[in-house]
Amino acid sequence: MSQRILIVGGNAAGMTAASRAKRLDPSLSVTIVEASRNISYSICGLPYCLEGRVQRFEELVYFTPETLKNQRGIEALTETRAVEILPGRKTVAVEHVPTRRTSSLSYDKLLVATGYRPRELAVEGLSARGVFTASRIEDGEAIASWLRERRPQRAVLIGGGYVGLEMAEALRARGLMVTLVEQGPSVFVALDPEMSARLEQELESRGVRVLTGHGVARLRSRADGSVEAVELAPGSARVSADLVFVDVGVQPRVELAARAGIRLGRTGAIEVSERMETSQSSIYAAGNCAETLHRVSGRPVLDALGTVAAKQGRVAGENMAGRVSRFSGAVGTAVVKVFGLTAARAGLSSTEARQAGFHVKEASIEGRFQASYFDEAGPARVKVIADSDTRRLLGAQIVGGPMAAVRIDTIATALTAGMTVDEVAQLDLAYAPPVGTLWSPLLVAMNVLLRRWNDQ
Amino acid sequence: MSQRILIVGGNAAGMTAASRAKRLDPSLSVTIVEASRNISYSICGLPYCLEGRVQRFEELVYFTPETLKNQRGIEALTETRAVEILPGRKTVAVEHVPTRRTSSLSYDKLLVATGYRPRELAVEGLSARGVFTASRIEDGEAIASWLRERRPQRAVLIGGGYVGLEMAEALRARGLMVTLVEQGPSVFVALDPEMSARLEQELESRGVRVLTGHGVARLRSRADGSVEAVELAPGSARVSADLVFVDVGVQPRVELAARAGIRLGRTGAIEVSERMETSQSSIYAAGNCAETLHRVSGRPVLDALGTVAAKQGRVAGENMAGRVSRFSGAVGTAVVKVFGLTAARAGLSSTEARQAGFHVKEASIEGRFQASYFDEAGPARVKVIADSDTRRLLGAQIVGGPMAAVRIDTIATALTAGMTVDEVAQLDLAYAPPVGTLWSPLLVAMNVLLRRWNDQ
Repeated sequence: MSQRILIVGGNAAGMTAASRAKRLDPSLSVTIVEASRNISYSICGLPYCLEGRVQRFEELVYFTPETLKNQRGIEALTETRAVEILPGRKTVAVEHVPTRRTSSLSYDKLLVATGYRPRELAVEGLSARGVFTASRIEDGEAIASWLRERRPQRAVLIGGGYVGLEMAEALRARGLMVTLVEQGPSVFVALDPEMSARLEQELESRGVRVLTGHGVARLRSRADGSVEAVELAPGSARVSADLVFVDVGVQPRVELAARAGIRLGRTGAIEVSERMETSQSSIYAAGNCAETLHRVSGRPVLDALGTVAAKQGRVAGENMAGRVSRFSGAVGTAVVKVFGLTAARAGLSSTEARQAGFHVKEASIEGRFQASYFDEAGPARVKVIADSDTRRLLGAQIVGGPMAAVRIDTIATALTAGMTVDEVAQLDLAYAPPVGTLWSPLLVAMNVLLRRWNDQ
Repeated sequence: MSQRILIVGGNAAGMTAASRAKRLDPSLSVTIVEASRNISYSICGLPYCLEGRVQRFEELVYFTPETLKNQRGIEALTETRAVEILPGRKTVAVEHVPTRRTSSLSYDKLLVATGYRPRELAVEGLSARGVFTASRIEDGEAIASWLRERRPQRAVLIGGGYVGLEMAEALRARGLMVTLVEQGPSVFVALDPEMSARLEQELESRGVRVLTGHGVARLRSRADGSVEAVELAPGSARVSADLVFVDVGVQPRVELAARAGIRLGRTGAIEVSERMETSQSSIYAAGNCAETLHRVSGRPVLDALGTVAAKQGRVAGENMAGRVSRFSGAVGTAVVKVFGLTAARAGLSSTEARQAGFHVKEASIEGRFQASYFDEAGPARVKVIADSDTRRLLGAQIVGGPMAAVRIDTIATALTAGMTVDEVAQLDLAYAPPVGTLWSPLLVAMNVLLRRWNDQ
């Protein structure tokens, strides 16, 4: 009988692991169980579907169970919830959600790829109709229905992370009045505050009201149960809303693993080896439910991005298929587009670097990533952060026009290599007027940063 | 008396060296001698000036001698040709070109930054009016005059390098019929031929006739001395032309240095140490007249790009000001935009890698650098090349839409760090639908390349 690979969770990590294992060893029997109605979807595309750039939610779904079976020979059971892992028996108890029928699936190797769930806002009134989060395609469909049927005029977005920022743009494109409420001192907390200030200006200039330093006290509903307003805290300002979107971070979905005695790390996510093994034999974990080694700080972190999940899934799939494969970690790369701007970061922010115990030197400059006669967006802002003791680059942040933020990949690569500022300052980066400048702002920033040691 | 720094050549290397030395030690007396009428210009901007995107050639000039003197305290003598270096006396004989007056300038430290000259085409008829090259602003002004006064209809561009490609676009924008003649099997020889094929399609689709595998036998003139046609070889096809632009490569301008006994390397350019010292004491060289260490092959090469020249100039300036500074070399990064496409390379091509003695493994894929709903240009093509023995990445090439080629900086950084394909395949690259994809085509290409060792 063929070896049975069972995978809980059918998105970036789970799908990649399944495909990779099956490709390496076609004799494997590979089964995915997925609690939602879809496998293999791009949740990142959701705002662009609401905006109208993507026509139908189906376009965000790469495989159905049928196409996955036919094209890759992998079984996917959707609307099927894993209830309990029984490591001793090497089985997983599952429930078919619509019928509530339970059954048991056995495995030789199991992958926990349960991902994340949106962090819940602990305030009254959240159950009102018209209040949404986004982690599944169904969430997008629900928002789209609300937009179509209720024609909301005023949206309040709670939380200024990636998704909140992208939703702000999408809902403005749909003609709504949009207010973005962020508890912290600035939006896109992945950046240091002086960098995100420009994002806030861009939002305001496109008609998004930005309220930082404000949490939410409660949500108010109408008599019909639909949301009417958001009350802020501190103070008691009341912002009218007939659509509310909540994105206040995510948390790893680890209950299933924890109940099975699988060890969690200090971050609260599942502790894994470089080969994506958990503390239980024959059980692997990958994706946003698992920890990721941050290569700059050297510490395990939560990195709730699909890119990291997919790479971890690939490594897990290779190991489950009998190969020896290692995931070497991530460097905290992130990027977002907000109207005409793009913003990105990699490595540690100043704050994070200090928290991690580094003595920090930093520099911030403005410069162009294209010749001025090609650069409609104007100069970008680049901030770079280094370890004062070793001169090693620790991180960078970029805010600028459409061509600016992709340059963060250069920084991500330099961070992975552990380069010093001196080394990065001499990188042979591409130049031609439409796509670069003689001195890339990345190099200028490094040269300015070097003055922190050398005086000039 | 203050130390005298003398710099021959007032462009990327010379200007950067002058500015850097003066900044580090304001007590230095810094003088630049420059044979042409301008210092500190962007010759790369010339096609965009002819195209009309840049309004006036003056905009391509960053400093005049006056502004350089006032803002940076540096003397620049333009239209002044260095005739002879006398290392024993530490003087340089110079000639003021308009008046032919000669004089002698003494130095404590000398920088030779004489750059390159266009390689000459050894054919009859080149002296016809309407035949141009481009290495100085004056060349651009002459072409602009010719366009304005003679209203040429048909241009022939000899040579399919960067400048030829950019000129093709510029002259099409001006409404000319354009034929591009390239002796080699494909345009943009920096790429392997299968990669440049897409550039040729783009040129043809924009109305540029591309004739590869054709040299030039001779140029024909009209009775008034203006160019009339280009005769090709082999064969004797005759292409009518009332404007001809020649760009068949460059060569380092080393005669001045060679006559002074300064040692040249095997490449024909000036041999330099990491500190940009020549074989003669107190004489430095930097920029396109000097050799560059190629960090992938480990060999000295000619790298006739302004980016490398500027970095070398910076290092030379620091050393001339008394600091200890080293240039660590380049990796052959290059990028060009051709109508709606961008193309780039870094490291070694397949051909170059084999010539350098590597056992080569390579892979080529198509993939998107943006989500399909943002990507108007369609998938990019990525080729990656590695050392079969060590799995070290040796080079990569990218041809795609406007957002594609800038990704080459990631490769340049990985090459500088000496990363293996395995390491590059796990880089934490940025993803959001408008600016990236979950699996960057760079990572996909690495994963496909890994199959050359691992079977799958």
